[in-house]
Amino acid sequence: MLFRQLYDNETSTYTYLIADETTKEAVLVDPVLEQVERDLKLIEELELTLRFCLETHIHADHITGTGKLRELTKCEGIVPENASAECANRLIKEGEVLKVGSVEIKAIKTLGHTDSHNAYLVNGDRVLTGDCLLIRGCGRTDFQSGDPGLMYDSITQKLFMLPDETLVYPGHDYKGKTVSTIGEEKKFNGRIAGKDRESFIELMNNLDLPDPKKIAEAVPANEKCGKVS
Amino acid sequence: MLFRQLYDNETSTYTYLIADETTKEAVLVDPVLEQVERDLKLIEELELTLRFCLETHIHADHITGTGKLRELTKCEGIVPENASAECANRLIKEGEVLKVGSVEIKAIKTLGHTDSHNAYLVNGDRVLTGDCLLIRGCGRTDFQSGDPGLMYDSITQKLFMLPDETLVYPGHDYKGKTVSTIGEEKKFNGRIAGKDRESFIELMNNLDLPDPKKIAEAVPANEKCGKVS
Repeated sequence: MLFRQLYDNETSTYTYLIADETTKEAVLVDPVLEQVERDLKLIEELELTLRFCLETHIHADHITGTGKLRELTKCEGIVPENASAECANRLIKEGEVLKVGSVEIKAIKTLGHTDSHNAYLVNGDRVLTGDCLLIRGCGRTDFQSGDPGLMYDSITQKLFMLPDETLVYPGHDYKGKTVSTIGEEKKFNGRIAGKDRESFIELMNNLDLPDPKKIAEAVPANEKCGKVS
Repeated sequence: MLFRQLYDNETSTYTYLIADETTKEAVLVDPVLEQVERDLKLIEELELTLRFCLETHIHADHITGTGKLRELTKCEGIVPENASAECANRLIKEGEVLKVGSVEIKAIKTLGHTDSHNAYLVNGDRVLTGDCLLIRGCGRTDFQSGDPGLMYDSITQKLFMLPDETLVYPGHDYKGKTVSTIGEEKKFNGRIAGKDRESFIELMNNLDLPDPKKIAEAVPANEKCGKVS
């Protein structure tokens, strides 16, 4: 398996390029509009065929590259079940496995950041956690129908049930960390380690964060697969 | 082996934390002063003992975290042979292997960016290339006794002699790429792929880049292992 983590400096977003090195089929998870040229060039150099653009959720902090990539490559755009993106080619729901050649990407419904969100377990040993579990943190829950109680359940009852050695690849990092493990996050994630559901909810409800800079344009654009009107 | 890539957003610098997971001995390659707290916290959480801070070269774009880490942890500071840093605990020269538990880190003298520079081959399958070979680029050669001819020789006669599948982990990336391979760089590195020595030298001598923002403070500080006077 080819596995490449790519970073967008402006929004601290991680995009993942995953491919079967034999069949050369590829998927991009959470592509960023401004990085489409970079990502496409890499895909071409590696002689990959982009089969899918896969979203963990409808983002509020950046515009997805899916629409543009779909126009340019004829790939399919896939979003989690219940996502308000009618433009998507298909939905992917809890437990469903997307096959990219021999690579298996299993959806894990992880609500809380928004009311439609999947993490993706890749070949059983690494999980792309989107804006649910972050390294020593978690996604916010104060807009887009976010729900701190559901976030707590998603992390503690689903992600933390994965083996401790599972690698954690988040949707963002703001401190330059690139990867963690489930075992580490269970011990050291300051937002959730050792906290009960009630105190986690209280913490999340009192973060008092400013809105993401791009929310007003990003959410409506992402509901149209990244089409900027 | 534990292998963590860490990123400094301000200077687009990669630091690498490498450890033997059994003996818990660790090395930090190219630590950044402003990130010492982050790196140290991670080392403590993972219950590692920082044995070494290892530099690829004397940096001009950021101040090393080595001095501060050495004060705080009693680790040894190691720089390449011929580096003007008398403060270092030891030098490491061409072909020498630094053992961190069972992890083997072999120095490859790769001059050109500066007149003292090593790449480090880690356990034979990945190479930390510092400011010599970058992803689709290379370090500049227009100050600190840089030499484009030597850079060409280092890349083509040393790094490109490694197996194609060797992973390339650079000292910087400015476009959000985290890793490449020797095979990819041989094909797609726009600075050097398909170029002869003479045209590479001409290209490098005409880049006309502005000085790094921090050069005036970084170089003298790094010659004192990161001590800011």
